Amino acid sequence: MKRVMCIPNYSEGRDLDVVEKIADCFRAKENIKLLDYQPDADHNRTVVEVIGEPKAVIDAVIESVKVATELIDMSKHKGAHPRMGAVDVVPFIPITETDTEECVEFAKEVGKAIGDMGIPVYLYEDAATKPERKNLAKVRKGQYEGFFDKIKEEEWKPDFGPQEMNEKSGATAVAARFHLVAFNVNLDTPNVEIADKIAKTVRHIGGGLRFVKAIGLSLEEKGQTQVSMNLVNFEKTAIYQALEMVKSEAKRYGVTVVNTELIGLLPLQALIDSAAYYMQIDGFSSEQVIETMLIGE
Amino acid sequence: MKRVMCIPNYSEGRDLDVVEKIADCFRAKENIKLLDYQPDADHNRTVVEVIGEPKAVIDAVIESVKVATELIDMSKHKGAHPRMGAVDVVPFIPITETDTEECVEFAKEVGKAIGDMGIPVYLYEDAATKPERKNLAKVRKGQYEGFFDKIKEEEWKPDFGPQEMNEKSGATAVAARFHLVAFNVNLDTPNVEIADKIAKTVRHIGGGLRFVKAIGLSLEEKGQTQVSMNLVNFEKTAIYQALEMVKSEAKRYGVTVVNTELIGLLPLQALIDSAAYYMQIDGFSSEQVIETMLIGE
Repeated sequence: MKRVMCIPNYSEGRDLDVVEKIADCFRAKENIKLLDYQPDADHNRTVVEVIGEPKAVIDAVIESVKVATELIDMSKHKGAHPRMGAVDVVPFIPITETDTEECVEFAKEVGKAIGDMGIPVYLYEDAATKPERKNLAKVRKGQYEGFFDKIKEEEWKPDFGPQEMNEKSGATAVAARFHLVAFNVNLDTPNVEIADKIAKTVRHIGGGLRFVKAIGLSLEEKGQTQVSMNLVNFEKTAIYQALEMVKSEAKRYGVTVVNTELIGLLPLQALIDSAAYYMQIDGFSSEQVIETMLIGE
Repeated sequence: MKRVMCIPNYSEGRDLDVVEKIADCFRAKENIKLLDYQPDADHNRTVVEVIGEPKAVIDAVIESVKVATELIDMSKHKGAHPRMGAVDVVPFIPITETDTEECVEFAKEVGKAIGDMGIPVYLYEDAATKPERKNLAKVRKGQYEGFFDKIKEEEWKPDFGPQEMNEKSGATAVAARFHLVAFNVNLDTPNVEIADKIAKTVRHIGGGLRFVKAIGLSLEEKGQTQVSMNLVNFEKTAIYQALEMVKSEAKRYGVTVVNTELIGLLPLQALIDSAAYYMQIDGFSSEQVIETMLIGE
């Protein structure tokens, strides 16, 4: 079965009645599974994680947009997290038997439906129609309040919907992107400059690995530091490559790796790729993992 | 959900009508999944792999025993593989939320039901009632033809059923055991003595790792040799431990590892344990693997 993940973000994290009504759009539906939803009161925002058959996910997302735009009034919204709409972002991520190209189509289908509700829509990441719209931070710059002016600029004409801000619902950004692996490497030095130098060497913008974003952080209570990485395409830049490059750079400072952390969800294949490297496994398939035989039973 | 795997072996691999009738016992049943069944004409034997909720698996196995004992006549059976009954062996393996101890109970339940059908039953591996019954090869020694005498010996009194051979159905061996990981390490030497020496050092009976069985093999067409291992308890002796010990022994002969092979199915945890070792991953849980969230959806 084709499966996509979708992680829509809604600008409501305090009124739990509203949050439950949004979550209801994804609950007890055929061919769709609500993995998680976390209302955050400080951010006044809820991140929903669903996975399922693309059509079922698309329908549920569109239903949730109707619910959210009815119940959330952006003209009264306050919260710590940057946001521009009641339904702020809707990224689609390929999981099984599908790819980023198809997810771009799903993003466009949802984007058009939201546009047809009178809400300006911007496509970002792999669905972006212009290079300057790839980066969500750039798209969302100015936020809800700034968009009333920003939307009038020709270069910020929406991909779908009116070229006019929706006062109640704001604007929405819809994307297709690859699954992001959050991978931290902890170093046995309290010197954050070292972690920072390693991060700058390993990451793409510093001349390092193509699909790695990285920063150096201090872990003060442990007396350690961390190279905190986002691997934005684990198929092309694998976890082991990032780890081995950090280790190799750490050597010049006489620093070693204490341990590592994989944060949040990751696809089985990301784990298999790195296990296969270290164990030199030839011809291993994810179908050999018993758990994969139980999916959708 | 509790899940066990069961790999019953039936002494019919030529009459595909019979094989399908046996497979039907596991097909389209609630809470049970038929993973595979492979009739082998040379062995005149079919190995069925099922996974599911214990009660559902037990019921289906008992149903299959009724079908097999009706349709298979051991007094006419010929085949290359050692065998003693129409339903030859029935091993239960813990998969999720269950353990070997519980599988011993499942083995006893099935054993009793088969015994009540007038078929002598022997419990082996972790379900064995005597140390000399742990090893299947010892239990099955003499095979169907030899069992008419063997069963009369006091030490071979069956665990269930009559102390008398069932001429049509033979005898059946039922077990609980841990999932076995078949792991091969290929070496860049054509000298099989080296592979053999390494195997003997790494395996349990040679003073090596507690849950490793190993032999050295020649891979003539490749000009390589292989340490072929069965890891009989991957929780206590992990794949990486076996690999690292082979590598460390190979060093004394100036031999290196070309690659490795993981054969057949293995549980996700077996892979995670070794990936976590090589990548020094702290606190990783199998629930972070997206695919596990799709099980039983």
